Amino acid sequence: MAERIGLWLNGARGSVATTAVSGLVALRAGLVPPVGCVTELLDANLAPWDAFVVGGHDVVTTPLAKRVESLVRDGVLSHDVMGCIAGGLDAADAEIRPGYDPAAPSPSQADAARRLAGDIADFRARHELARVVVVNVASTEPPVRVEHDSLAALEEALAVPGNVVLPPSSLVAYAAFQAGCAFVDFTPSTGVALPALDELARSNALPYAGRDGKTGETLVRAALAPMFTSRALRVLSWTGTNLLGGGDGATLEDPAHAESKLASKTRGLAALLGEDVTAPLHIDHVPDFGERKTAWDHVSFEGFLGARMSLQLTWNGLDSSLAAPLVLDLARLMAAAHAAGRTGVQGALAFFFKDPLGSDEHRLAEQARELHEWARTLGTR
Amino acid sequence: MAERIGLWLNGARGSVATTAVSGLVALRAGLVPPVGCVTELLDANLAPWDAFVVGGHDVVTTPLAKRVESLVRDGVLSHDVMGCIAGGLDAADAEIRPGYDPAAPSPSQADAARRLAGDIADFRARHELARVVVVNVASTEPPVRVEHDSLAALEEALAVPGNVVLPPSSLVAYAAFQAGCAFVDFTPSTGVALPALDELARSNALPYAGRDGKTGETLVRAALAPMFTSRALRVLSWTGTNLLGGGDGATLEDPAHAESKLASKTRGLAALLGEDVTAPLHIDHVPDFGERKTAWDHVSFEGFLGARMSLQLTWNGLDSSLAAPLVLDLARLMAAAHAAGRTGVQGALAFFFKDPLGSDEHRLAEQARELHEWARTLGTR
Amino acid sequence: MAERIGLWLNGARGSVATTAVSGLVALRAGLVPPVGCVTELLDANLAPWDAFVVGGHDVVTTPLAKRVESLVRDGVLSHDVMGCIAGGLDAADAEIRPGYDPAAPSPSQADAARRLAGDIADFRARHELARVVVVNVASTEPPVRVEHDSLAALEEALAVPGNVVLPPSSLVAYAAFQAGCAFVDFTPSTGVALPALDELARSNALPYAGRDGKTGETLVRAALAPMFTSRALRVLSWTGTNLLGGGDGATLEDPAHAESKLASKTRGLAALLGEDVTAPLHIDHVPDFGERKTAWDHVSFEGFLGARMSLQLTWNGLDSSLAAPLVLDLARLMAAAHAAGRTGVQGALAFFFKDPLGSDEHRLAEQARELHEWARTLGTR
Amino acid sequence: MAERIGLWLNGARGSVATTAVSGLVALRAGLVPPVGCVTELLDANLAPWDAFVVGGHDVVTTPLAKRVESLVRDGVLSHDVMGCIAGGLDAADAEIRPGYDPAAPSPSQADAARRLAGDIADFRARHELARVVVVNVASTEPPVRVEHDSLAALEEALAVPGNVVLPPSSLVAYAAFQAGCAFVDFTPSTGVALPALDELARSNALPYAGRDGKTGETLVRAALAPMFTSRALRVLSWTGTNLLGGGDGATLEDPAHAESKLASKTRGLAALLGEDVTAPLHIDHVPDFGERKTAWDHVSFEGFLGARMSLQLTWNGLDSSLAAPLVLDLARLMAAAHAAGRTGVQGALAFFFKDPLGSDEHRLAEQARELHEWARTLGTR
Repeated sequence: MAERIGLWLNGARGSVATTAVSGLVALRAGLVPPVGCVTELLDANLAPWDAFVVGGHDVVTTPLAKRVESLVRDGVLSHDVMGCIAGGLDAADAEIRPGYDPAAPSPSQADAARRLAGDIADFRARHELARVVVVNVASTEPPVRVEHDSLAALEEALAVPGNVVLPPSSLVAYAAFQAGCAFVDFTPSTGVALPALDELARSNALPYAGRDGKTGETLVRAALAPMFTSRALRVLSWTGTNLLGGGDGATLEDPAHAESKLASKTRGLAALLGEDVTAPLHIDHVPDFGERKTAWDHVSFEGFLGARMSLQLTWNGLDSSLAAPLVLDLARLMAAAHAAGRTGVQGALAFFFKDPLGSDEHRLAEQARELHEWARTLGTR
Repeated sequence: MAERIGLWLNGARGSVATTAVSGLVALRAGLVPPVGCVTELLDANLAPWDAFVVGGHDVVTTPLAKRVESLVRDGVLSHDVMGCIAGGLDAADAEIRPGYDPAAPSPSQADAARRLAGDIADFRARHELARVVVVNVASTEPPVRVEHDSLAALEEALAVPGNVVLPPSSLVAYAAFQAGCAFVDFTPSTGVALPALDELARSNALPYAGRDGKTGETLVRAALAPMFTSRALRVLSWTGTNLLGGGDGATLEDPAHAESKLASKTRGLAALLGEDVTAPLHIDHVPDFGERKTAWDHVSFEGFLGARMSLQLTWNGLDSSLAAPLVLDLARLMAAAHAAGRTGVQGALAFFFKDPLGSDEHRLAEQARELHEWARTLGTR
Repeated sequence: MAERIGLWLNGARGSVATTAVSGLVALRAGLVPPVGCVTELLDANLAPWDAFVVGGHDVVTTPLAKRVESLVRDGVLSHDVMGCIAGGLDAADAEIRPGYDPAAPSPSQADAARRLAGDIADFRARHELARVVVVNVASTEPPVRVEHDSLAALEEALAVPGNVVLPPSSLVAYAAFQAGCAFVDFTPSTGVALPALDELARSNALPYAGRDGKTGETLVRAALAPMFTSRALRVLSWTGTNLLGGGDGATLEDPAHAESKLASKTRGLAALLGEDVTAPLHIDHVPDFGERKTAWDHVSFEGFLGARMSLQLTWNGLDSSLAAPLVLDLARLMAAAHAAGRTGVQGALAFFFKDPLGSDEHRLAEQARELHEWARTLGTR
Repeated sequence: MAERIGLWLNGARGSVATTAVSGLVALRAGLVPPVGCVTELLDANLAPWDAFVVGGHDVVTTPLAKRVESLVRDGVLSHDVMGCIAGGLDAADAEIRPGYDPAAPSPSQADAARRLAGDIADFRARHELARVVVVNVASTEPPVRVEHDSLAALEEALAVPGNVVLPPSSLVAYAAFQAGCAFVDFTPSTGVALPALDELARSNALPYAGRDGKTGETLVRAALAPMFTSRALRVLSWTGTNLLGGGDGATLEDPAHAESKLASKTRGLAALLGEDVTAPLHIDHVPDFGERKTAWDHVSFEGFLGARMSLQLTWNGLDSSLAAPLVLDLARLMAAAHAAGRTGVQGALAFFFKDPLGSDEHRLAEQARELHEWARTLGTR
């Protein structure tokens, strides 16, 4: 029998996690085809869907069975599917432990991390899992500056009671590595993108990847910007407006939280087109949108003899629907990478991310090619 | 001194040709940067812009200097540039000969082809050109069915007085090959896409490429459709509406003429996404648009768990501005291919075409890569 | 107690009718607010929602309870509301009689009309209704030419066995008037728009109104076109593309059926802007749209000193959701008009229609004003 | 002979003013039709175009003949028209005096106002004008708080040397009234919207109107929002993004300056739809747009039974082309109002403004009707 693998979700009760768990249950039951699952296109030896067991951390306590109702209302999944996956959701629900809350009493961040790592280790032991992949899908945090560049300095600081050294996303990454798990950063939060955590991953021989899942406007930009450059057309401006509801919209309405997201999006465009493109970008919270997200992009470009032309795009997506299959894909891929002994940042997974760690490639087609090549090196089916 | 090369335009007084000639003159004079010229991005040993001499055929007689005025009105080039290129336009004008007119008296199509080939040969001799590239940029023709698959059968039929065997675009390709020239089909007309003409090109050791320059909506589709497939998203429908004015719009308002264009566009989408996508497509003639073209595409797609999402695009382009630099690029590339002894269809130029001859690749990024590789084999700078 | 009124729907099992009945049941039960119901804004003495009893004709036999399921899937109403209205739907279902089928055996169209009128009269008697309003919401028919301009000539022709004189929509209008009912034409079919039927309505002292409910693109045009004219801006072209799925889309994919709809839409635009505006219009059937309809309009206009500008619109609507409350509104209004002794065509209801009978006014704001004034003459609350 | 009238433009060298002067010269010469001029549609006795003489104030010194060149580049007027109006532009140029500059030395704001009023009075005397209409088309100012509500208190404060009591737009309105002129506020700056200035206008028996010319997105909103309300559809959110280049874009990029404009736009939408609509609004400066402005609006609305639908709009306008004819219209209308002895705020001109003074009506069709009625009271032709 194939080995069993854990998928541990940080932010396990959010929209993306709930959709991912719902989808995993539905895929295992053969209720839906694997639309949106990139790993189905790869020529690689990956674990089947029924190899996975799900658990996770969250600071909220809403049951998944309740959370999924609002996803049905917003069109993420159908009433019929919801009826068939209740059992699977409840099983996952039983594996969710309280997340790290900076406001809760704890002697030190080191203690808190030990508790998180312990939850994951218990889960692995209880289900006799060969390995666990931890994926961060919690709400976006404001950007922070972490001072400690070496692992030794970081750990010394973490041990001091009352000291707040790491934001939650980074403490979770730290705990994942301490528990011997591969880690994926699906958000633009600081997370694993710290020299000390890279050092820890490599010293523990663990792979990691990130960051900020590429699910909407940036996905389209990664496909379209190379069209302009490969045709020697000069993009003058590329403006963007994002309308989103739901919890994500409410979080990103706060400019401090939005800053991480906007920075991540803007870096990608500059990498694709160069720094001198005017590229204002807004995120607006529009509650009636629910899980739906609408983005409008306007591109002005110059052609031969100075001719002025434009392209407009309106993207109407369901972020959770776009993100969830990628979370499952990343669990499969990172489990295989872990099994194959890959260590440190996996830049070949840039295809999945707005702000790829370990890669300078932002062109979608090139990222797809790198992913396919990398997957083949894991051993083909 | 570098060799001198002829660019012979069939449809030399049309918008695309006039823009190409204007741009060539402006590039040679250093008035404008080579925006939109793909060959500037290639690592290849190509002739410089001042190596080119322009001539052509056309059935109309409007002077280029007159034609360019309407292009200025429509925003294709500026009043200032027009003032500086008058001399160059007049020089090209003096090299334009009467085009083939099926309605004009001629003993046979073979005689007509001899006259066309003679015009090109005279041009080559008069200017001491090392080689000439013939590019068809005349109005789109209705699709026709040509019976004669072998060159021998075709030539026998062409010799019969009064017989109309080939549409003008194909007779021009035949004449180009008889004159020993490389040929490019920039339109969706029948042109070179006949077995007998392929036979002729190969027996005369001449390269050719085509067809239907990819300048607008199809360009965007070639960049975007692979985004959906690489993400395993299922496109349900991809509808298109094209609004265009000018001569092109008037020609394509006639359903018979539009048929070639629509077939070419639709084949591309089916190749990219599969046959089962609902893909209605319309072309409307809207006189006030002049040279401007607006295309609206609506894409419905399905994601994970059956979620429904959409993407809308509005492209606002100037077809002549987009086409003209590609015409110059193709002249450079085909001259180099001819010099390098390449024979028959050049499928590696699919990047330029909606309906690429000699290639099944419709994904823009892959086409770009093939072009760059092919160009390198011509000898780098 | 207030009088009871019948609403008799021709095409009672279609999307619009099913939504109207669902909504009436939900309104009566206080499940939803009367959003989209124009009569709620009027200062007029109209029957309350619970005064209405519903019946109708249809050639298909799918139960309403089944039909409503697909409306839920397409987002027309929620799963929760569906659960609460089952009883009301079944009651309406029991009042639906077989519709007129030209292919079914019947001695003459006069006999068929007698049967239809008898069904309505039975319904009125059985429920002790003060009056019945018949509303045609059946599928759009191709345009036909009816020869008989006088009522006498028409009735003579109808009596001839085997003769097909009237299209179904007109036979239904004839039967409604024979049964002593007010009539509303909510489709672009021929329906009541015949001199002989006008004669019949007036001789029987019955009011009627039509035609083609204004629910989407044309609604927006009726609001926006006056903006351009009131600002003295010159519209050069106004192009339209309509994407629709469902039964309506399938019917209108047939060019003969679409002709009625396109003619109705185009007449409105010409009335608003003048005849010399280029106005190509397409309807495409895109099955994945279900009940949803997307329309894209592109308006080119000229301003001061010849400046060229444009406006684009993308309308994303649910036709049944937009049509159904208007059907209920028209039932209320026509019942009041009947009670008040109004006779013949009611042009003041132009607000509801793409192709208003008895009115030349196409500007939405003026139509709204006329409606409010007309409603006040029926007696205020 | 008809009386001669002065049009005095504050901000006479800006885009709107330069376009208005260019257009006036072109209209007088019969070079262009009066497209965009609303007064041409009115049944009213208004001065002909050749009755007007133009002068103005500005703090910059770029000649109009220079300024117009950039308008030609941006498509506001054609190269051909520019060639024909040079003489007229020079004549207007000679009548432009230095504008009020708060940074320039002046004993008091009262002295500065006296100088401005003197310039206008000289202009009136020199050209033997029956009356002068002053129109403010200068750059948008940040909002300010003016303390002095009575004219007496204001004038006392203005007389104190070194005191800065009024922003430039208001000082200009004060000077206009002191010079016995009608005044129009075409910008969202504070301008005439102060109780003390209203008192001055009424005590000097002068009419005024404002404010903030309704030329783009807000124009469309004023036409469309009543469509939703008249159909009882519930607008949930109406978001807006404005991309603009040119001087206006640079000014409005500064959040302090943008605040006046955003407040003016938002008030209008709330008045049309109610306060509870989510309505985020952005203005971005995109230099490559030049005079062109693109606005994208997304409207989410709810219909019958809770159905969710949307409308998207992309407006592509040339603000100066849209504003300039309204400036000329307002000059004509206010001259007639002045001649007819109208005093104080003219609320019936709300049709022209985003934030109409003296009116609560924001619905475009109703505003048009009020304008037509008001114009008729001035005496018909």
